[in-house]
Amino acid sequence: MQSLSSFIILNTIMKRIVIIGGCAAGPKTAAKTKRVNPENIVELYTMENMISYSACGMPYYIKGSVPSYQNLIIRTPEDFKKQGIDVFLNHKCTRILPDEKSVIFNTMVNGVGEIKKVNYDELVLCVGSRPYTPKVKNINLENIFHLKVLDDGIKIKEKMEKSKSAIILGGGYIAIEILEAFVKNGLNVTVVERNHEIMSQFDPEISTIIKDYITKRDGKHVDFILDDEIIEFIGTKEFTGAVTRNGKTLHADFCVVAAGVVPNVELAREAGIEIGITGGIKTDNRMRTNIEHIWAAGDCTEETCLITKRPMYAALGTIANKQGRVAGINVNTDTNGVYEAFDGILGSAVTSYFDFSMSTTGLTETKARIFAKNSSIEPITATVTKRDKPGYMPDSNSITVKLVADKRTGELLGAQAVGVGDADKRIYTVTSALRANLTVQEFLHLDLTYSPAFSSTIDPLLTAAYKLKDEIDK
Amino acid sequence: MQSLSSFIILNTIMKRIVIIGGCAAGPKTAAKTKRVNPENIVELYTMENMISYSACGMPYYIKGSVPSYQNLIIRTPEDFKKQGIDVFLNHKCTRILPDEKSVIFNTMVNGVGEIKKVNYDELVLCVGSRPYTPKVKNINLENIFHLKVLDDGIKIKEKMEKSKSAIILGGGYIAIEILEAFVKNGLNVTVVERNHEIMSQFDPEISTIIKDYITKRDGKHVDFILDDEIIEFIGTKEFTGAVTRNGKTLHADFCVVAAGVVPNVELAREAGIEIGITGGIKTDNRMRTNIEHIWAAGDCTEETCLITKRPMYAALGTIANKQGRVAGINVNTDTNGVYEAFDGILGSAVTSYFDFSMSTTGLTETKARIFAKNSSIEPITATVTKRDKPGYMPDSNSITVKLVADKRTGELLGAQAVGVGDADKRIYTVTSALRANLTVQEFLHLDLTYSPAFSSTIDPLLTAAYKLKDEIDK
Repeated sequence: MQSLSSFIILNTIMKRIVIIGGCAAGPKTAAKTKRVNPENIVELYTMENMISYSACGMPYYIKGSVPSYQNLIIRTPEDFKKQGIDVFLNHKCTRILPDEKSVIFNTMVNGVGEIKKVNYDELVLCVGSRPYTPKVKNINLENIFHLKVLDDGIKIKEKMEKSKSAIILGGGYIAIEILEAFVKNGLNVTVVERNHEIMSQFDPEISTIIKDYITKRDGKHVDFILDDEIIEFIGTKEFTGAVTRNGKTLHADFCVVAAGVVPNVELAREAGIEIGITGGIKTDNRMRTNIEHIWAAGDCTEETCLITKRPMYAALGTIANKQGRVAGINVNTDTNGVYEAFDGILGSAVTSYFDFSMSTTGLTETKARIFAKNSSIEPITATVTKRDKPGYMPDSNSITVKLVADKRTGELLGAQAVGVGDADKRIYTVTSALRANLTVQEFLHLDLTYSPAFSSTIDPLLTAAYKLKDEIDK
Repeated sequence: MQSLSSFIILNTIMKRIVIIGGCAAGPKTAAKTKRVNPENIVELYTMENMISYSACGMPYYIKGSVPSYQNLIIRTPEDFKKQGIDVFLNHKCTRILPDEKSVIFNTMVNGVGEIKKVNYDELVLCVGSRPYTPKVKNINLENIFHLKVLDDGIKIKEKMEKSKSAIILGGGYIAIEILEAFVKNGLNVTVVERNHEIMSQFDPEISTIIKDYITKRDGKHVDFILDDEIIEFIGTKEFTGAVTRNGKTLHADFCVVAAGVVPNVELAREAGIEIGITGGIKTDNRMRTNIEHIWAAGDCTEETCLITKRPMYAALGTIANKQGRVAGINVNTDTNGVYEAFDGILGSAVTSYFDFSMSTTGLTETKARIFAKNSSIEPITATVTKRDKPGYMPDSNSITVKLVADKRTGELLGAQAVGVGDADKRIYTVTSALRANLTVQEFLHLDLTYSPAFSSTIDPLLTAAYKLKDEIDK
């Protein structure tokens, strides 16, 4: 990775930089590239009627902690205009023409559909992802919702406020956040998850802790149907219920499908841009695709796992922002010049269900065991459940920390933390340890801050590391 | 650092291990050494009438968040007895005799003073620290308190509950914690600090943010007298007030002296044990002193700074615990055998004033500039003030993060974070980056977890790192 000085960039020639996508990576790329070289023409196109909003904030809007959806809008087209960036709303890209360095948009001008061709010097695809739509009969009935664009959030909230019950198809991060919103608003909710556990991004015994917490807290209002899946929605025009593979019939006022996302890569594929094995657009660490002058960033791209060095796919706002920053810098540089690198990700993630937080980074034991089949690592783990602050503190709570390491080298591979205590702080800390390939032996001596108001004298993280070290030494 | 297997240790011969000190390092050493080799005779001596309590918890007991001082007691002598560790309360060590491998204690037996000589195979000094007593006239008046042992906490709380005003001599961590307790309990408090700012462990502009917060929140009840010091206490038998060097006369119901601590090293020095330049007992990374079979751990020892590789002194429960663990392991090993190492500290610390948290690790700019005079580092810094969560979240708050790096190598040297937001989480994360000598360039790509409930898409830590990178590249 080479160092990049803004002074070098300012000497590059003026370019027309076309960015497609208005949610996270697109606006970030636009803002960064304009800041790095104000001489450039920077144009930001989106098929939506607004840009630069926090998609991740939608569950909190539905829940009611964010009073208006307008709070979720980060920057308006006018804000971008002030920075010298032109924003084009309601522009749906229909074709990329790499040979003539142009893109085709469908748009409306004065109520009349129009086709527009736009030339570029550099094209950055930030076309994001869309909800995965499982193959379920009648999935297009009314009152079956996805949660992707801001409009979805608005509609779900409206429906929720008039409803008493809901079904959530899926049991991952978004599902849990929506579940919280619905329970908070007094709904009875059935969660249908085809895996054996909800939150299967965690190891099974950790997922069980999450499920048990939800059940203990809200069992009267939340029903989990696991190891099963919806095969048919019931209703003629409007959704009234669902039937599962195991023969259960469920009834509810509406349904939210939260079964993950898939990257929007169709246009890219048609243009000859290489798609990775995870389904995302393949880029190098400069965010370049295989086609010259075409870059990609955000949810539409595939990443590299920093632990396994293999491709992985994660659609997260924080990654989109970082990639947008890197693309925004690099579109200004010559191919042989200095550049900024985006080396990869750890799969770090966090969410919460009311006071209970759940966070993970790097490999779970499950993922490590899969990786071990084709690598030389030898996964070993330790789990501790311990108070996050001294027991005498009134807000002391119990958290469970699981660490995964390679017995062979002693290097940490991943961590999971869940509990009413501060799980996220612990995982934050592990991300930098993973970035630096710290061994368990190095990690267990971390000079973490300590005060009874914030942690225990020996943090649960370190207790887990001590235990793991004992396992490694056995 | 070599790996240590408990199987090796079990083959060592049985030893009598005498540990002096009952607060943090002592009990930890005792528990660990007994666990590593249950065959050993482990004896724990303390001059106090209780052991194994959380000294750090005392401000929270005074404040009222911890209902009883008995909550602060972690383990009783009976708990230790069950583990096979003999505890001797009210045993004041008066002499160490390395040549005959014994120690002398003054104690009371049936109300009669007695002198006891105890032989050891290995002696571990965990004799802690005591409050620094500044040279102030009449400092021995009644109602002038220190806060070190549990009994001090009990007395201060009793006095506070009958009082309307107090003076705190000192403006560091403990002073701020006591200040919060007093303000919470309705007292008017004057803080007298001889430095230009309170919390001078932080860089001046960061300390100013802390002071401004306290003043804004509680200015009616808190008065800061800075750049000044108490030179005389007023009163005949009981304290009634104080006079400062600048001629101010202050009146209050009582005073707490919180001017830092000094290590208890007198006995060690008399016995020929080497004392380091910071005033703490000098040990190697195995916690051995210069005298064979005598070890030291906790507040009485001097540490090594992991950044500067130079001696530093920090009296913290978390360090005492870690050193106790290392000493507890190593007293069981042969000098040539495998051992556990305690390599040093970063000076990490945290505290809070109500909702405002303040945390630091590694070098401040001030310390880095001092270090730069005798080293090749070239300190460079960046400071950002930013919301810790997206602005639309109801509990989003502003925190200030300052990073310090070496412009020459790009390596991070330290970090400070303060604010109503979650400052401690950020510093936790930097401790592992410092442990691994991460550069700013590596750090700014950290794959931190993200959810609006926990952080912003680009964490303030990373924003500070971006800014610092720009400074480095200039």
